[in-house]
Order: sequence, then structure tokens, then C-alpha cells
Amino acid sequence: MPTSPDRPRGVLADVRGPADLRTLDAAQLDQLAAEIRELLITSVAARGGHLGPNLGVVELTLAIHRVFESPADRVIWDTGHQSYVHKMVTGRADRFGELRTETGLSGYPAQAESEHDWVENSHASTSLSYADGLARANELLGSDRHVVAVIGDGALTGGMAWEALNNIAAHRDRRLVVVVNDNGRSYTPTVGGLANRLTGIRTSPGYEPALKTVKDVLTTRGGPIGPAAYEALHAIKKGVKDALAPQGMFEDLGIKYLGPVHGHDRPAVERALAAARGFGGPVLVHVITTKGHGYDIAVENENDQMHQAPPFDRETGDAVAVAPAGWTSVFRDEIVRIADERTDVVGITAAMLYPVGLDAFADKFPDRVFDVGIAEQHAVTCAAGLAMGGLHPVVAVYATFLNRAFDQVLLDVALHRCGVTFVLDRAGVTGDDGASHNGMWDLSLLQLVPRLHLAAPRDGTQLRELLRECVDIDDAPSVVRFAKGPVGADIDALERVGGVDVLRRDADPEVLLVGIGSMAGTALAAAELLAAEGVACTVVDPRWVKPLDPAVVELAGEHRLVVTVEDNGRQGGAGSTIARAVADAGLQQPVRVHGVEQEFLHHAKRDVILERLGLTPRAVADDTLAAVAARNAAQG
Amino acid sequence: MPTSPDRPRGVLADVRGPADLRTLDAAQLDQLAAEIRELLITSVAARGGHLGPNLGVVELTLAIHRVFESPADRVIWDTGHQSYVHKMVTGRADRFGELRTETGLSGYPAQAESEHDWVENSHASTSLSYADGLARANELLGSDRHVVAVIGDGALTGGMAWEALNNIAAHRDRRLVVVVNDNGRSYTPTVGGLANRLTGIRTSPGYEPALKTVKDVLTTRGGPIGPAAYEALHAIKKGVKDALAPQGMFEDLGIKYLGPVHGHDRPAVERALAAARGFGGPVLVHVITTKGHGYDIAVENENDQMHQAPPFDRETGDAVAVAPAGWTSVFRDEIVRIADERTDVVGITAAMLYPVGLDAFADKFPDRVFDVGIAEQHAVTCAAGLAMGGLHPVVAVYATFLNRAFDQVLLDVALHRCGVTFVLDRAGVTGDDGASHNGMWDLSLLQLVPRLHLAAPRDGTQLRELLRECVDIDDAPSVVRFAKGPVGADIDALERVGGVDVLRRDADPEVLLVGIGSMAGTALAAAELLAAEGVACTVVDPRWVKPLDPAVVELAGEHRLVVTVEDNGRQGGAGSTIARAVADAGLQQPVRVHGVEQEFLHHAKRDVILERLGLTPRAVADDTLAAVAARNAAQG
Repeated sequence: MPTSPDRPRGVLADVRGPADLRTLDAAQLDQLAAEIRELLITSVAARGGHLGPNLGVVELTLAIHRVFESPADRVIWDTGHQSYVHKMVTGRADRFGELRTETGLSGYPAQAESEHDWVENSHASTSLSYADGLARANELLGSDRHVVAVIGDGALTGGMAWEALNNIAAHRDRRLVVVVNDNGRSYTPTVGGLANRLTGIRTSPGYEPALKTVKDVLTTRGGPIGPAAYEALHAIKKGVKDALAPQGMFEDLGIKYLGPVHGHDRPAVERALAAARGFGGPVLVHVITTKGHGYDIAVENENDQMHQAPPFDRETGDAVAVAPAGWTSVFRDEIVRIADERTDVVGITAAMLYPVGLDAFADKFPDRVFDVGIAEQHAVTCAAGLAMGGLHPVVAVYATFLNRAFDQVLLDVALHRCGVTFVLDRAGVTGDDGASHNGMWDLSLLQLVPRLHLAAPRDGTQLRELLRECVDIDDAPSVVRFAKGPVGADIDALERVGGVDVLRRDADPEVLLVGIGSMAGTALAAAELLAAEGVACTVVDPRWVKPLDPAVVELAGEHRLVVTVEDNGRQGGAGSTIARAVADAGLQQPVRVHGVEQEFLHHAKRDVILERLGLTPRAVADDTLAAVAARNAAQG
Repeated sequence: MPTSPDRPRGVLADVRGPADLRTLDAAQLDQLAAEIRELLITSVAARGGHLGPNLGVVELTLAIHRVFESPADRVIWDTGHQSYVHKMVTGRADRFGELRTETGLSGYPAQAESEHDWVENSHASTSLSYADGLARANELLGSDRHVVAVIGDGALTGGMAWEALNNIAAHRDRRLVVVVNDNGRSYTPTVGGLANRLTGIRTSPGYEPALKTVKDVLTTRGGPIGPAAYEALHAIKKGVKDALAPQGMFEDLGIKYLGPVHGHDRPAVERALAAARGFGGPVLVHVITTKGHGYDIAVENENDQMHQAPPFDRETGDAVAVAPAGWTSVFRDEIVRIADERTDVVGITAAMLYPVGLDAFADKFPDRVFDVGIAEQHAVTCAAGLAMGGLHPVVAVYATFLNRAFDQVLLDVALHRCGVTFVLDRAGVTGDDGASHNGMWDLSLLQLVPRLHLAAPRDGTQLRELLRECVDIDDAPSVVRFAKGPVGADIDALERVGGVDVLRRDADPEVLLVGIGSMAGTALAAAELLAAEGVACTVVDPRWVKPLDPAVVELAGEHRLVVTVEDNGRQGGAGSTIARAVADAGLQQPVRVHGVEQEFLHHAKRDVILERLGLTPRAVADDTLAAVAARNAAQG
């Protein structure tokens, strides 16, 4: 239920939709911006969420919704975590008390929530491609409506954005406005040649005069301007801005460049957007914002400017609860120890140094950790090049984002026998961030890759051990994947058979339970329940999903039923492979495969989702009891 | 065995490696270029292969190998089909008689062939990422060697290339030379804003003077130049070239731009490369070449400039044999009929209008077919945007290339319930083009995508029928996939059970044979062999791989053994899904899954590969007989 501090008050309470914004005067708009910031800070402090990015787009969002008419004009938010303000002004301010709860607002745009939301996913750099498609459709269907895509400078480092810009630029008649929300950051400062250029603008003494010139010209001219006026504007600006703005870059590509504009000067942003709207063709509006603007504690947080925060104390910015040690921190510590021992080991991150835990490595060996930007494809193939050059790269990335570089893992790394280790954080069911954040595809996807080795540690000790085994593989890709959140206590093995850890062995066991990675604990707990019902089990953790250890098949042959448990998709996952290996060996033992059905998961806490999917000890035990009963009945 | 016309003669016969090139004088080099062209034309005329791209890089390749010292300096060829000349001058000229044969030269670079080859794959836009990795490794390991990446203007439309350029540009000390081989083409003319800009250069009256200025400056200065001289050069050029070259674009990004250089003027190219080598940091050298240069018939072929040719008559350029009607031509005709009937259907190609058969659609409805460049990610998400905008896009692409956009199919299309149809040509085992061209991943990959519908037609009639069913699905992605090459005669069904076609039904059948797509014929032929040995079969084509028709499981229950045949990977493929469905239904029937083991396939003819993989009627029948015998023995 919404709690009182999150309920909108004042001006915000009267904003039912974007049209209401157009009736407000300047003073009301200023007050509205303050109210929105207050609601952002209060809601995220209470329940966690994306703070810095949303504080940075308050004025920009108001300006967009005043200049364009959503939903007839379509507004696409790249990497949807910057859409909180958009949600507030499109009729959802009163639901921020339930942000990111199972029955409440998604932390991303959601078509089911509003006619103003189009693109739901959280993967960066896609907005311009959607916008290009929508603009082509408008053109073909005779609509003169606009498409507005808002993309961060960080997301511009992703190749998709460039593919789209190259297309957008080639068609002068499509009504498409690209708003570059340039805050100089992904989580950390944006990297690369383009970012250096953009940073150059902000730190140049000519920056303020340039902003003023653009503002003056736009103010003098008033409302929307056509191509002719645009050219005049362009000529006036050119003298001041040539050394400042990357207009050469964009205009060489063939796209009109407008800016830079001070992103917290709402009237200035509105004038620029109105000019872009009037131009009638594709225009890039360069808006400079500050992540965390209006909340000093966020602005001053150099690591990530409170990009995504757990519940926190608004007076200090400190998290209200200390998170238990997580999988990431185990990796974070161990990779430094490995880097100490092996000078050939280097790290690669795609703009997520802190979230993936490469920061300690980078602190100690700054020359050996590379941030390549939000550019997973490049991260993977650059790693192949590093391996060919004699190094051993460790690419640390969220599991869901490696989906963007499957072809590169397959061909650029595996085909070329490059020794590259991938560390997949947030693998399996993650929870609150919604469908596109779950890492439930990796075991299926990566098992398709010839030569690749794929490990799923069950605990911190196994993570350290398997990470080291991966880094020792120098002629093939290797992967270690682990879950989001706390790592839990170690689960000791009774013995190791082949490469397989035996975690429990009842006398005269009937059922072989195979727990993959963090689901080993679930398998053990299920065995406990089964034992209570008189069904004896062996529980194993194969440690390596690929190649499958022959010991798993041998053990299968010594039981009457095999049950596998993973938090990856059932389609082509670890259990599916075990089932095929058992069948290929000519064994008759049935294999019950527990995993995630191939469906998109609605956001909720991880435990709630696992319960819903039947991935709990109770559900696994019940299904196993039924299978044992069926088998006994069949065998009379 | 090499045949006599392909054996190198004259100067080429004495070139054992790149070092030999550096001892030749100008006249010898001119003769060598002519000999290389002759060998290119003769070899490809005899056996087929990539012609136009290689004729275009003769002088460029000679220049690279004279200025840089491979393999100490590393030369990376983007989209390896432009490496024939490189192969000839690195000791492999005498093997062009066996080009693209199973025991002969690969049509792409191959590490097993030569120490001068690094990157084997055929997917575009990867070279700059490898080069960035290699240059980082050189820097870290203290090597002052160069990395040279040769990339076409077409491949620059791919997002990976941009991700890499953004990284390359940010590090001024790495010795990396990006050679843009600008021939204005992918298969067809390159599209997009960048291409428009590059084309502007060539068609400008200032182009020739600009070329001359660059040449004069470089000639006057002689050999390698350092940064200071480079700046002087830059200043001299600037007056002439500002309106001509896209240097604003690249220099805004932070990468030095050198050119344009006439790519068939070998000394000019050498001078430019020497200047780049001397600069000591990342430099982009813009070389303008003509695809097919030196063979008028290729240059004048407007469709694709003999990009990849079947065996042909060198006097006329005509193929020596008329190819039988292929799968592509069935699609080509049917999509035009569908487009006639439904104005909301649009086509998308990633720079392969002719190869995927969208040309007839584009001829008839030029506004409704979009070439987005070599940009599969954008193709897919732009399609999602088109679908949101009210159209039904048909994305036609080689199966292997859709691997590059898995995340976009999953999240941008399926999560958003967009009605987009994917037409996958060259699915399954393709053959001669080597590991990276085989489309043996799609059935596994795409079955991971929730909501997606996946069809595999067995013949031309089924392709037409299933394509129409796909285009009628407006709330989810749909896929129709088919093989490379001739489509063969229709295979009529005896009846349809559910959505499953029954192709053969023996009396009292013991075995259910399930043939996927073009392997339905193999399943039928296997049944014939089994019948001769007294084993009665039912043969079915499920038509849809996903969702799996419940009739398949019902039919499985009516037989004692199930055998599936597909030319996709066994891991997570169609057979694997059928096996899981049978097990999930509590059935005891064993399922024998025939498909491609997860390994990279060495280039050979499709039939040879299928034989090697055991995907022939005889091999399937023998395995089935063994399984039947084992089952009978077990049941006593």
C-alpha cells in the first residue's frame, strides 16, 4: 500500500497527464520540479531504486512532455531506469509508494501501466533503433507525428546506437528527435573517444558562452523554426561552437546537431526541443545534465552518483542496512589475488566496474583493467584480441548482458581457441528489476558454444576454486556464473567423484538429485524432505555444467530416478543436457528437469519468483515423490 | 590436386612470403599485380568464390605487406573473404587450385594454414575489436609492433566497429592502423549517413585534386613521419579536404584521419601507410578502391560486382551451370505475392538484398524494403519499432547472422509482443564457406525465446504455407528457416494430424521418425531402409518446431521408439525438445536425437559434412536398428 510520504502533493497532485503540464506557468513548473525531486528521494530512500539518473532528467522530462504530445508523439526512453519522472507526469505519481513491488509500479517503463510507455527493457542503446522503425512507419503510413528518443551519452557507446544513427541520418524527411542526455556517466564516467570529446566541451572556457549563444538565438527566434532558420542559427553558432561541440561528427554523418543546452534550465531545453520539432527532419539535441542534480549527496558520490541505491537514510545517503557479503564480493577479492599471482591476467568491464566487482583489481593494477563502455560485443572480441596477444582476459558482466555478444563468444573467442574467462554475475532469477534483468538464459546459450567450459559454483569456496580453474584454461572460453545477492554459507562435500561433489548420500539411495550452482542448497533441502518421507537420495553438485562430467551419468545409472534443479531455463539447460546424456548412454532412468519455463518473469523478489516457478525444496520434493510413486506403480 | 592454369607463374612464383615483396621494383610489382588478378579470375572461374572484393584489394594488400612486417606486425582482415591476395603473397599461391575444397585452402583466413592468419570468421565488423585487444596487449607487454586492421566501408555500418573505434580513439599511444577499404559496397551499395558522406567525396569535383594533394605532400616528405610532421600535413590538407573527407567525424572521435588515397595507386597507398606507421598512435587511412578492379565484367555487374561467384565463363562472366531453383527463390516469389495482398508488410535486409531474395519485393515496392546496412541488431529492433508503428516487418537474413541479434529478438521483439517475421536462409549445414557460415544454431537459440513461433518447412510448398502463417502472427516473433541450395521436389503428406504432417505410415509401426525441415527427406529415406529390414515406421514432419505440437507427443506414445533428425545442433535443438516433452508426459519411449554435435565444422560440401555427422538415411537407419535391437533385448 502507498505510504503517506510518497503521495504526491502540491502541483504534482493535479498533474494527471502530460497535457496538464502545458497549462502550468513558470513558477508552478519550478515548484513541480522540486516536488518531483522530493518524491524521487523519498520513494527511493524507502524502497531502493534508480535515483541519480532520475534526478538528472527532471527538467528534461518536463520539457519533452510540454513540447511533444505523448502518446501521439512517441517518447522512447533508452535504458528505462530514467523513466521515473516520466511515470510521475503520466498519471502514476500516486503509485510511487509501491515502486518495484510485485503488484506495484515497475522500475522501468511498462506497456501494461500506461499508454505513454513503449519500450520496457533495461538493456542500453536500443532506443534509436526503435525510433528509426517508428519513424519509418510514420512516414509510410502518412503520419506527421514525431518520435523522440532520449539516450544517455553512456548508451551512445553501444554499437546499436551507431547502427541506428547511421540509418536515421540517411533520411532527411523523417520526424525524429534524438535527445542526448549527456551526464558524462554510465555507472562510472563514460569512456572512449566520443566521451573525451563531450567532456572537452564541459571543461572548456567557451562552454558557458556557447550555452548562452544558443539560448539567445533560440530565444530571439521564439517558437519552432524551419530548415531555413535552422541554417541561419547554425551559421551564427558555428563561430562560437566549432571547437566545442561534436557537431562535425554528427553532421558528417548527416544528422543536424543542436546544442549544447543546459539540461537543468527548463526553458532553454524547451526552446531547443521546439526548434527540433519545427525542423521536420532528424535532429540531435545535445542536453547537458548532472546525475543526481538537486540532491548533493548523490552528486558528490563519485563512484556512481547513487545510480541505483538500496533503501537509504536521506540525511546521510547511507544504506539503512548493511548488505550481507554477496557473490560479487567473493569474486572481487579473489580476482585481485589471482592478478597478484599472474601478470598476464587482465580485466574487462562494459561500463560496470563497481557492480561487477572489478574495482579492487583496477585500484591495484590500473593498467590492467579496461572499461570499454556499454559495448558487450566489443568487450568480448577485444578480449579475443588480448588473448591472441598473450594475455588472459577476464570479462566480468551481468549474465543477461552477455546475451548481446553470443556471436562473439561463439566465433570470435571459441572458434579461435582464445583463452578468455567470462564471469557472469546476476545469473539465474534475479527479481525486482523485471524480465530483462533475469539471467536465466546463460546455461542454455553457452552450452551451444563448442569448446567452452561452463562452471556454476554453489558457494563462495567453489566460486574461488572454479574461477581459478577457469583462468587456467588457455585455449578455450571458460565461464563461471553465479547468482545475485548474498552468497550464504559454504556447503561442504562428502567426497569428490570425478569432478563431481557429493553433498549427501543416504543409504541405498533411490533418487539422484543434481543441484546446479546456487540451487545445490535447494536440492539438499529437498533431499531432507524426501528422507522424511522415506525416499533415500544422493545429492550432487556437478560443478561444471559443460563439459558434463561422465561421473554424473555413472551415478545416474546407480539410481532409479534422476532429478535436476537449476534456475536457468528448462529449454536446453543443464538438466536437459543431463537427460540427453543419460539417454545417449542407453540408460532407462527417467530424468525430471526442474528449471524456469521459457517465459518472461514479472518483477518480484527472487524468493517469490522461485516459489511461483516451483523451484523450492517442497515443490521439488513433491514432484519427486509423485515420480517415484508413478515409477513404482508402472513397475508393479 | 592443383591444376595447371592456377599454378603461379612469373613474379608470383618467387614470392614465398611478404619479405620477398620488399625486394621487388616497381615494374615487378606491377607485373605481380597483373599475375595475381589473373590467378584470382582463373581460380574463382573454375571453382567459385569471392571475386570482386579480392580484385579490389590487390594493390592495397601488396602495400600493406611491403610497409608492415607480418607476422610480427599483425594484419587483421575484416570479413575474411577479402584475404585471397593476402594468401597468395604469404606462400599459398600454389594452392589456389584447391580453393574451398575439403582438403584445400579455406575461402577465409585460417590459423592452421599460415602464421600470417589470425581471424578466421566471416562475420563483418569484428576486426577493429580484435585489433584494439591486440594493441592493448602490445602496449602492456612492451611491444612496439603495429596492428593493422583492414575494414570495408560496408563493415563500418556494423555497431561493433563503432564500439571499437570509440575505444581505439581514446588511447593515443597504441600503434594501430585502421585501413578503411572504401569501395562503396557491401553486396550492394553501402547505406546510411556515413556512406552518403563517403559517396559525396568520390562524386565531388574536388576529389581528384584532393587525392593529388595528399599524394604530393606524402611524396615530398618521403618516408615515415612523426606527429609533428603529421600536424603540418594535416594543416596543408585541411584547405582542400575539409568539404571532402569525413575527417570531422573521425577526428571529433579523436582518431587521426589520413586520406583519401587512390587504392589502385600502389605507391600512393604505400606512402600513406608508411606515414601512418610513423605516426605512432591510432590512425585511420582512407583508401578508395573499386570492387572488381581489373576485370570489367565484375566492375560492370551492378547487382553485386561478382561479390561471390559460382564457377563462371571468364569471357562472359556467366555462370557455367544454371543453379536449380533454390529455397531463396521460393521465398523471393512468395513475399512479393504477400506484399501485393498486404500493404502493411515491409521487408528488412542487413546489406544483403539479393542474397536473401528481397530484391523482387524492393523492385515492386521500393518504399517498403529497407536496407539498414551490416547491422543485424538494428535490423531486429528497427523491426520491433516498425511493428509498434503498425506494420508487419519481414526480416530476411542468413541464419548464422541472426546469432548477432539474439538479445534483440528476445527482449526488443518478443518481450514487447511485436509481430515480426524472421526469414532465415542458409539454415543448417551449409558447407564450403566454413565454420562460421553454418546455420546450425538457430533452432537451439530461438527455442529459448518465449512466445516465439518457429517453423521449418520441408519443401517449397511448405515454405510458402508456413511463411504465410508466420506473417499472420501479429503479437509475437515468428521464424521460418530453410536450407541453402536447391529446394527439391515437394514431399506430399498423407494427412495432417493436429498441425503435424504424416509423410509415411507403415502398418503396425514400431518407430516414429520425426524429420525437421529439409531433413524430412532423410527421415523418409531412412524409413525405406528400415522397412527393408522389417522395421515398420511412421514418418512425420511437425512443421513447427516451436511451439511443439501436442500431436507429436501423442504419436510418440503410439510407437516403441522415437527418432528425430535435424541439421541443427543436438544441444537444445528440436529433437532435444521432443525428448523432454515425451519425458514430461511420463512416457517411457526412448528418443534418439540425430543432429550436429556442438563442434565447428571444417569446410566441405554439405553432403560430405552430413555424411561425416551421421546425418544420412543409412546412418540414421543403422542407429535405429541398433536401438530397436537393444530395446528388444532389454525387454527380453
